[in-house]
Amino acid sequence: MSQPVRVTIWNEFLHELNNDTVRKIYPHGIHHRLAEGIADYGDFDIRTATLREPAHGLGSELLDETDVLIWWGHAAHQEVSDETTALVQQKVLEGMGFVALHSAHFSKPFQRLMGTNCSLKWREADEKERLWNLQPNHPIMDGIPEYVEIERAEMYGERFDIPTPDEILMISWFQGGEVFRSVCTWDRGNGKVIYIRPGHEVYPIYHQPEILRIIANASLWARRRVSISMVDAINFQPLESVPNVEKRHILDPADTD
Amino acid sequence: MSQPVRVTIWNEFLHELNNDTVRKIYPHGIHHRLAEGIADYGDFDIRTATLREPAHGLGSELLDETDVLIWWGHAAHQEVSDETTALVQQKVLEGMGFVALHSAHFSKPFQRLMGTNCSLKWREADEKERLWNLQPNHPIMDGIPEYVEIERAEMYGERFDIPTPDEILMISWFQGGEVFRSVCTWDRGNGKVIYIRPGHEVYPIYHQPEILRIIANASLWARRRVSISMVDAINFQPLESVPNVEKRHILDPADTD
Amino acid sequence: MSQPVRVTIWNEFLHELNNDTVRKIYPHGIHHRLAEGIADYGDFDIRTATLREPAHGLGSELLDETDVLIWWGHAAHQEVSDETTALVQQKVLEGMGFVALHSAHFSKPFQRLMGTNCSLKWREADEKERLWNLQPNHPIMDGIPEYVEIERAEMYGERFDIPTPDEILMISWFQGGEVFRSVCTWDRGNGKVIYIRPGHEVYPIYHQPEILRIIANASLWARRRVSISMVDAINFQPLESVPNVEKRHILDPADTD
Amino acid sequence: MSQPVRVTIWNEFLHELNNDTVRKIYPHGIHHRLAEGIADYGDFDIRTATLREPAHGLGSELLDETDVLIWWGHAAHQEVSDETTALVQQKVLEGMGFVALHSAHFSKPFQRLMGTNCSLKWREADEKERLWNLQPNHPIMDGIPEYVEIERAEMYGERFDIPTPDEILMISWFQGGEVFRSVCTWDRGNGKVIYIRPGHEVYPIYHQPEILRIIANASLWARRRVSISMVDAINFQPLESVPNVEKRHILDPADTD
Repeated sequence: MSQPVRVTIWNEFLHELNNDTVRKIYPHGIHHRLAEGIADYGDFDIRTATLREPAHGLGSELLDETDVLIWWGHAAHQEVSDETTALVQQKVLEGMGFVALHSAHFSKPFQRLMGTNCSLKWREADEKERLWNLQPNHPIMDGIPEYVEIERAEMYGERFDIPTPDEILMISWFQGGEVFRSVCTWDRGNGKVIYIRPGHEVYPIYHQPEILRIIANASLWARRRVSISMVDAINFQPLESVPNVEKRHILDPADTD
Repeated sequence: MSQPVRVTIWNEFLHELNNDTVRKIYPHGIHHRLAEGIADYGDFDIRTATLREPAHGLGSELLDETDVLIWWGHAAHQEVSDETTALVQQKVLEGMGFVALHSAHFSKPFQRLMGTNCSLKWREADEKERLWNLQPNHPIMDGIPEYVEIERAEMYGERFDIPTPDEILMISWFQGGEVFRSVCTWDRGNGKVIYIRPGHEVYPIYHQPEILRIIANASLWARRRVSISMVDAINFQPLESVPNVEKRHILDPADTD
Repeated sequence: MSQPVRVTIWNEFLHELNNDTVRKIYPHGIHHRLAEGIADYGDFDIRTATLREPAHGLGSELLDETDVLIWWGHAAHQEVSDETTALVQQKVLEGMGFVALHSAHFSKPFQRLMGTNCSLKWREADEKERLWNLQPNHPIMDGIPEYVEIERAEMYGERFDIPTPDEILMISWFQGGEVFRSVCTWDRGNGKVIYIRPGHEVYPIYHQPEILRIIANASLWARRRVSISMVDAINFQPLESVPNVEKRHILDPADTD
Repeated sequence: MSQPVRVTIWNEFLHELNNDTVRKIYPHGIHHRLAEGIADYGDFDIRTATLREPAHGLGSELLDETDVLIWWGHAAHQEVSDETTALVQQKVLEGMGFVALHSAHFSKPFQRLMGTNCSLKWREADEKERLWNLQPNHPIMDGIPEYVEIERAEMYGERFDIPTPDEILMISWFQGGEVFRSVCTWDRGNGKVIYIRPGHEVYPIYHQPEILRIIANASLWARRRVSISMVDAINFQPLESVPNVEKRHILDPADTD
């Protein structure tokens, strides 16, 4: 644990270029804001990547050297190639952590890892959100109080179309009358996947310390611990005596299971 | 519950045509054996479909009228089109049950629903398998004793690369020294997914009453209860007064979340 | 499933005797109101029992003939004897369903089954509650819309000190700013435990059809399926050949594990 | 995390005094063997306590200064007082970790935390056990290979009467034909509970490095992170405007929920 956690922050990086409001809040892009913001809460070695770079900035080598990939996307999910989506999925299954932020619920890698559509209700009405902390003892909740308030937020409401989370750490209350499972975790292969709802391009939520701390804690917690590829089935010799271990495949020697 | 459960049994249906051993065990195909076999344990309205039919025999209309889809595939998973894979996934998310049998762990619809590779260890050595019943009170275990033995089985061993199951109903012991989570369930959208390990093309396992009963019970339990499409995000009006409900989208009216 | 589900409704039955407001709402007691109310939503064979009857009205024979025990208590949890608490726990572990309503979160049988204190935040302020339906496909949500509103409710807020639920079916939103996991299920032994938050002695919540239907659905779903006592360890003979099966206990033949 | 983890190892400490075979294997008691054994795998500050000390060696102050309590008992579970059982439970709910070893499945604190009987099958036949690692990425599996073998073990078999574990990290295979969920975790209040099957008084299993490492890893992972008492309900003032916040309790001001 004395090694810094190698984090790659991926950002779509379109709103910041096209929209004055967003640029004012995140002048160097959401990715650089997050990089600055989480640095206070852990020992990280941070790189960034964006959509319009070649291969979206995400090669196999970079991901092998990434302990946690943080993902922010909103307006251009479909521009992410199937190839990159599959690559990210495989790296997670091998052991890389994956932190999906806010509108990344609809990102292709998150949908692929979940196996569901990840749809939800939404509304932009400058309303208040209050996130309740359900597991104060969880490392991702380290330093997080009983609840966190966001003064102006986009609403996300249930039913959030996700598989049963392994852990639900925070549930949001919205002024307009909805609730949402806002911080959830899942195991996928040897990797950890975390969804963190707060964040938006036109609200300065990634300037709010509690939110940055949750993202930092999640990155520490989900860091890669192993690198194990599990794509293929393994023909395994018995560890105990069995009657016909010498028996050959009956059908097709090319079968893999 | 007085209505019969509408089951569609999908079979790759290649081994039975190409291999004498298999044909002897399943002369009319695994799909017809399963259709006969489960009929004793529930009120089912059964159809079948196979790989080499047009669109693999699986159109949108048929799936809308299907409460549970049972899937058997082994040698030709890659022949299943991406289009059919996506269609099956969406129908599950809408509420259709999905029962993946044995080597269907590597089928494209199961992998897509899991979000993982679903890899495992395997061995064909005519060895004994004993499945232990962990939840005798579960409807899928109705009528199933404390354990079920299969005299000659293919081994599947851990680590099985699946997401944390919502429920683990049976764990297998193998003569050669391995264990396996053999009957597992997951929620995906509004549908239930069940994996049932026992079965093989060259062992007459789908003639064994306990195994047929587990498959029948799973089909009863996973039957469709709703039909709700959840592909898109829903822009939802507030149920309580909020300050800026009239506020319009700031960025792009085409955004959907 | 053609047999009626045998439900025993247990009520503390004190508020209805001592308090005019409560008596006006539940003139024959909450237990009789519930008995009437759930009858519309399933085929039940209902008995009732109350705190001040001998042995709290709950003998071993009655519980053996009970498929689901519904529990309402509030002001006198400590009057329930340890003996009855242990008896109820054992009957649940054998296969009886247990539905804990509202303030029964602090009942001794529920605490015993959970292993936690089941504490929470609360407030009586005549405020609005809205319960969001997270699993429209679940049998307990049969006939329940996307959300249910209760115009005047007591608030219960997180952190609710319960073990991780096996299933979270509804989450409540409260006008005052809190959220709560309001309909949850757990397996305990061979029995199902369900907690259902709505209800109160001075609000007429058990006259509200959706709430009665949730309680009825829960009772159908949690009905006893087996009766298996699992108190003692079982000295089990090997099913496969092992080297020293004849070996005797080394220490004390009275040992049970 | 630079602080040592304060571990208290509790041992019944009877077999070692009464039985020559056991004394030979654990001359200073199982508690001291464990203390030595885990020290190689983490920075621990270790104390011990035993059954026949006053108050079983476990006062409230000691437990407040304990991050993780490891529990070994076998022949005298019933000698542990109800008072100590309740105290240990409360300290776990406040945030102390609890590691139950082998025959501690029947210890009063473990049963109380689980809410079930924790019964199982067992056999002493000098047989082989093989524990399969299901989550190589989990901190408790740090340094643990794909499987661990124990040459001579007591068998524990399913159905193990425990609540659905939050995590199942290892499943055992036994030579005689059984399986067992051998390393499991649960949240209880703010504490983590871990059950670790391997170990026995007459087999030298606590001299086996992999087993010691699992216990050490579990102790690191389950260490106290918070100290929050959650016994009572909290009357909570609203965070948002509600119509009748000034409303008083209607029934009895002594009510606590």
